[in-house]
Amino acid sequence: MANSLHLIRHQLEISTRGKGFTRLDTTINRWLAGTGVKEGVLHLTCLHTSASLTINENADPRVLEDLQAWMDAVVPQDGQGPLNGDGKRRRYRHDDEGDDDMPAHIRTALTAQTMSLSVVQGRLLLGMWQAVYLWEHRSAPHQRQIACQLIGEQDSGLLKATQLNREIQSRHDPEAWARDGGVDTDVDLMVDRLHDITSD
Amino acid sequence: MANSLHLIRHQLEISTRGKGFTRLDTTINRWLAGTGVKEGVLHLTCLHTSASLTINENADPRVLEDLQAWMDAVVPQDGQGPLNGDGKRRRYRHDDEGDDDMPAHIRTALTAQTMSLSVVQGRLLLGMWQAVYLWEHRSAPHQRQIACQLIGEQDSGLLKATQLNREIQSRHDPEAWARDGGVDTDVDLMVDRLHDITSD
Amino acid sequence: MANSLHLIRHQLEISTRGKGFTRLDTTINRWLAGTGVKEGVLHLTCLHTSASLTINENADPRVLEDLQAWMDAVVPQDGQGPLNGDGKRRRYRHDDEGDDDMPAHIRTALTAQTMSLSVVQGRLLLGMWQAVYLWEHRSAPHQRQIACQLIGEQDSGLLKATQLNREIQSRHDPEAWARDGGVDTDVDLMVDRLHDITSD
Repeated sequence: MANSLHLIRHQLEISTRGKGFTRLDTTINRWLAGTGVKEGVLHLTCLHTSASLTINENADPRVLEDLQAWMDAVVPQDGQGPLNGDGKRRRYRHDDEGDDDMPAHIRTALTAQTMSLSVVQGRLLLGMWQAVYLWEHRSAPHQRQIACQLIGEQDSGLLKATQLNREIQSRHDPEAWARDGGVDTDVDLMVDRLHDITSD
Repeated sequence: MANSLHLIRHQLEISTRGKGFTRLDTTINRWLAGTGVKEGVLHLTCLHTSASLTINENADPRVLEDLQAWMDAVVPQDGQGPLNGDGKRRRYRHDDEGDDDMPAHIRTALTAQTMSLSVVQGRLLLGMWQAVYLWEHRSAPHQRQIACQLIGEQDSGLLKATQLNREIQSRHDPEAWARDGGVDTDVDLMVDRLHDITSD
Repeated sequence: MANSLHLIRHQLEISTRGKGFTRLDTTINRWLAGTGVKEGVLHLTCLHTSASLTINENADPRVLEDLQAWMDAVVPQDGQGPLNGDGKRRRYRHDDEGDDDMPAHIRTALTAQTMSLSVVQGRLLLGMWQAVYLWEHRSAPHQRQIACQLIGEQDSGLLKATQLNREIQSRHDPEAWARDGGVDTDVDLMVDRLHDITSD
């Protein structure tokens, strides 16, 4: 049988420790295991304008240090923008929350704000060296929310044993079909609809 | 019941006023309201190589000014690229349409060209301070197209009242099932298929 | 009829010739043609931390040369990072695989690692001047994998002629329904479920 696709929503709550990276894929895989979804696509949206999503190396921590150092140099945090064509620097105007405020918005725009990942055999499909990170761009620790929308097939065992039972148990009137004799009822309309689907 | 997922395509037509930001999420939410889709994922593709998609702050307009100023400095518009390792600048070779042409392609590559957003309760799921923008990178006003592909559940009321009626009204032969006696017909094949789905 | 959505997984294997661009959309369209999917969304994930995905111009090859030159200048390949606020340059710490190693990770973070594209009439929906590229950021040729997860509707002709036949042929017990008389069987449960769907 071909399983039908289901929509499952979730929200990740992540505590960051200020500027830097928090790994997400291990947390996501634990959640996926409980959904019963074996194959599908997971859509992530970082619900903030000063934190973002990125995939990078999971092995050498110096990669993340170098990545952060590059970002610090190209999107300066000292309240001054980059050098313009005349070699002059321009002060950010939006600085209500401090010098790390506007650079965080720019860094967010340069990296991923939404990300769609394959789910295979109940886990995120990533390359050997890849990890998914939340990139916090503010200096202070923050609570961050990441919306997850999963479109996927539940394994058919779970579908049969759990979901179908649940739907059957929620029937309002299990005796209706036996009682109504099958003429001029909603069931007939449904069967006619099935007929249309299969006839040319 | 579990609603099945539907695919609904749409195209946004946006008139830009040259370099800068046009808000999309309010326009998208109005369109979503008419689809009857309450829960799903909306996929956006900006169909141009000199305009792109981004999420950023919806409150202080200085955020967008600072973001544009950073981009102007790091991807120069004067027809000269950034300083290289020798402190020299390189002229863009692709300049058929003017000095703002090649910088627009680079700025597009640095920001989002496709974006996937959650739809919840019939609206885009965004953080409190987030807005979705089309970022025009050319100096002159342009007409821009954004492809929308929505995968979602229509609310069951609408499904029952509208869609099912529509399908029933399109039946070619409503009397077929009553007439054919239920043996060796397409309906039987469908019922057998249902049987397979529920049997182990 | 409304077609139901299917999930089809694929993996692209791309041989790169070192730093630069390999066009993907023509390869993807050939694969799409064989799937029978006419309408849907294709999700791409580049399974590497030193190569990425981008959409840019398909016409003038100088666009890609200028784009590469900009990237070379802003994410230096000489093993030195960009100028910081004091006008000094910082050496990358992660350089185990050479001077092109860390810049490749940064360039990957600045461009798309996942991408979701509309499929319409069996082909990727792109603008007239758009092409989808794999952007190789390492100097040497590499073998790259791109995961494809397609969510889409197969055309109803193919669905009826091929898929339904396939499902019917895989029935375990085609005589079950005729034999069991329609009382207290899985089929009844399914018909009751259909009844629930159509009743208020």
